[in-house]
Amino acid sequence: MAQNEKVIKAARRAKRAVVDLARLGPEERNGALVAIAHKITESEAEILAANAADMDAARALLETGALSVAAYQRLKLDHAKVREMARGVDQVAILEDPLGQITLATELDHELTLHRVTCPIGVIGVIFESRPDALVQIASLCLKTGNAVLLKGGQEAEHSNRALFSVIHDAAVAAGLPGDALVLLESRADAAEMLQAEGSVDLIVPRGSNALVRYVQEHTHIPVLGHAEGICHVYVDADADLEKALAIVMDAKTGYPSACNAVETLLVHRDAVPRFLPGVVSALQAQGVEVRLEADAARGLRLDQVVEATQDDWSTEYCDLILSIRVVPSLDAAIEHINRYGSHHTDAIVTEDPAAWERFFAAVDSAGVYWNASTRFADGFRYGFGAEVGISTGKLHPRGPVGLEGLVTYKYKLVGTGQTAATYSGPNATTFLHRAIVEK
Amino acid sequence: MAQNEKVIKAARRAKRAVVDLARLGPEERNGALVAIAHKITESEAEILAANAADMDAARALLETGALSVAAYQRLKLDHAKVREMARGVDQVAILEDPLGQITLATELDHELTLHRVTCPIGVIGVIFESRPDALVQIASLCLKTGNAVLLKGGQEAEHSNRALFSVIHDAAVAAGLPGDALVLLESRADAAEMLQAEGSVDLIVPRGSNALVRYVQEHTHIPVLGHAEGICHVYVDADADLEKALAIVMDAKTGYPSACNAVETLLVHRDAVPRFLPGVVSALQAQGVEVRLEADAARGLRLDQVVEATQDDWSTEYCDLILSIRVVPSLDAAIEHINRYGSHHTDAIVTEDPAAWERFFAAVDSAGVYWNASTRFADGFRYGFGAEVGISTGKLHPRGPVGLEGLVTYKYKLVGTGQTAATYSGPNATTFLHRAIVEK
Repeated sequence: MAQNEKVIKAARRAKRAVVDLARLGPEERNGALVAIAHKITESEAEILAANAADMDAARALLETGALSVAAYQRLKLDHAKVREMARGVDQVAILEDPLGQITLATELDHELTLHRVTCPIGVIGVIFESRPDALVQIASLCLKTGNAVLLKGGQEAEHSNRALFSVIHDAAVAAGLPGDALVLLESRADAAEMLQAEGSVDLIVPRGSNALVRYVQEHTHIPVLGHAEGICHVYVDADADLEKALAIVMDAKTGYPSACNAVETLLVHRDAVPRFLPGVVSALQAQGVEVRLEADAARGLRLDQVVEATQDDWSTEYCDLILSIRVVPSLDAAIEHINRYGSHHTDAIVTEDPAAWERFFAAVDSAGVYWNASTRFADGFRYGFGAEVGISTGKLHPRGPVGLEGLVTYKYKLVGTGQTAATYSGPNATTFLHRAIVEK
Repeated sequence: MAQNEKVIKAARRAKRAVVDLARLGPEERNGALVAIAHKITESEAEILAANAADMDAARALLETGALSVAAYQRLKLDHAKVREMARGVDQVAILEDPLGQITLATELDHELTLHRVTCPIGVIGVIFESRPDALVQIASLCLKTGNAVLLKGGQEAEHSNRALFSVIHDAAVAAGLPGDALVLLESRADAAEMLQAEGSVDLIVPRGSNALVRYVQEHTHIPVLGHAEGICHVYVDADADLEKALAIVMDAKTGYPSACNAVETLLVHRDAVPRFLPGVVSALQAQGVEVRLEADAARGLRLDQVVEATQDDWSTEYCDLILSIRVVPSLDAAIEHINRYGSHHTDAIVTEDPAAWERFFAAVDSAGVYWNASTRFADGFRYGFGAEVGISTGKLHPRGPVGLEGLVTYKYKLVGTGQTAATYSGPNATTFLHRAIVEK
């Protein structure tokens, strides 16, 4: 209960800080970001010293197997990574201001105008796993969007996070931002209380493993911006250009197999099987990919070293050099498979038939639906968003790769000269104009 | 468990029906709506007979006090209401098609284009209380937006809902829509199971009392489009035009006191108190409004029959002819009161000072922030949205009055000619163009 009060009180102070942040224009917010970037560069020695303390502890965990090699490597900071962090903050500073943008403008009547204007969400709670650069990135995205942020990092990065937080906090306050807008939480209990802080915390952003995202989703009623699992498909149609298909499958599987936009299951129209399957299987195997294929599909083809695929494969995100392959009798069967087993992330069709593409686009229920392109393009930077808050596999806004728009919402601004609603109802009602305002 | 399977199976069939709905163009969806409207008019006798059975049962509940007079009246259908329902469906048919709208278009590279396109959400679960016309309205909004819908109405309206559902379902199927896209749930157990059907149901829309909305929010992890309580404020600034202020307060309180956009608390800058308060209090009392005022504020003014306001008043939605009044020392104190006690619905400032308005707009954390206009304008029809799905007091999209956009989401459509992501990374990376496409 004492814990509880602590986080809730910090969140309430953070909410008041959002009101103070709202006094600042984009120049002041961007100026603070540039100052933060500068201070990170200046403080490299302290940051690396703190990181060294974390690495000492991590080495022990690595030896007992309590920490994976990948997690150990993500934890490590060096000169290049510190420079990269500072550069990342500078890049957020030069992005277009996401606040104050008008997304709807209507003249309801003479001297009664309605605008929908983007604005901060409020207090964002972020839970991230070992990579300490996530703290810097998410803090700068939140300040850019005028939000306050409560940050909870992994226990393994405790010293690094504390050092980075202190650098950012000091630089932000020196640049005139309210200190209460940035809060570091350090215990698991604090994080658990944050998930219960409905009304004080407006959005939770988990950054890390699928397990973390799922845990957060199941333990809070606060909206979650989650990038959960990615079970992406490539469907090679009967009318596919097989050269394109081969290049796309190889890129989508081998480019970065642990990314959420990597392909996990290849669907092949049965008419394309004889011409396509032997070639793609041997190309994949040459790159070290384990191929899992339905027993029926493998029959009649002379394929070596192919593992038999089971039902479980269709709903598995391998995050590894493994690809399952299923042969389908029709485009509609491919669509049905994707909608049933996929994670609504990104799915591609390879075909030269525009009608097949149109049907695929209309029917596949995913955030990204691609024609003759690799699923690996599903990424905020590649989409041109500048910064990536995450990738949302939810069905509602924001969906897919999420840029700064994931950290803003909107308000309706109604400006009148004393109008009352009664004037517009009843037998002598004035009629609304509802005329779109074309902004200059 | 048997119950569970029943709802989940229906939801899965509904999800497949969404794919079938995606084959239909706006003409076909709108044609089906017109056919539904026609069939409602044709079936008036059956609908009224079913409603009479509900009214018989309701009369007994009314006598024992188990049903309120208001609920009893909402339940009753007559010729005018049936005509109104049919007309409502016809009006949904003529609204602009919300699907297939392009909200972002970028040329990532030559022959690699990205579009963000609006599309249906999928399966919508609706829980509504006694008013049977809600079934017709929500079913038509869902079909307009290409979604499937599971409908659960109140027990009191059982016969009416069954009759209306059967009319709509028959007309929809006759017009070529997939029958599985419309499902009527009848038991409380079914509704409870629907709230657990994550992955099969994409959005829950509760339509009814605050208690219903809160219950639903607390019992599901599926996103909820809720119009919860409305604690709206009018703040009368030191620089207010008091004639405008009086008109706005009277409209916002007495126009329709049980609406969520009615004002509950009036905040008055202390400098405006002597000139404003006595007049507004007597005008309100003349209209039968109970006035609750802080003890300190009442001192020195000769006000009759004023009730003393307590802390509880600031967070109470009266839904009645009651208004609490608080005197504040400054604009910032008014903003702090609103952000603390309000429900982030709609709040208005009355002032002739543009700087006060700008500060109020930037700092008040509500879906609607109004200058010199009544809070009663917060309504989808008044905003020009044509149809209202509800009013969302959540912080994220959709926020405020929600039109058809509340029932659509979007997909990213990437069209290439075989591009791979590898081309755009590494030392010889091709640079993205990221050029906005101006649609013709």
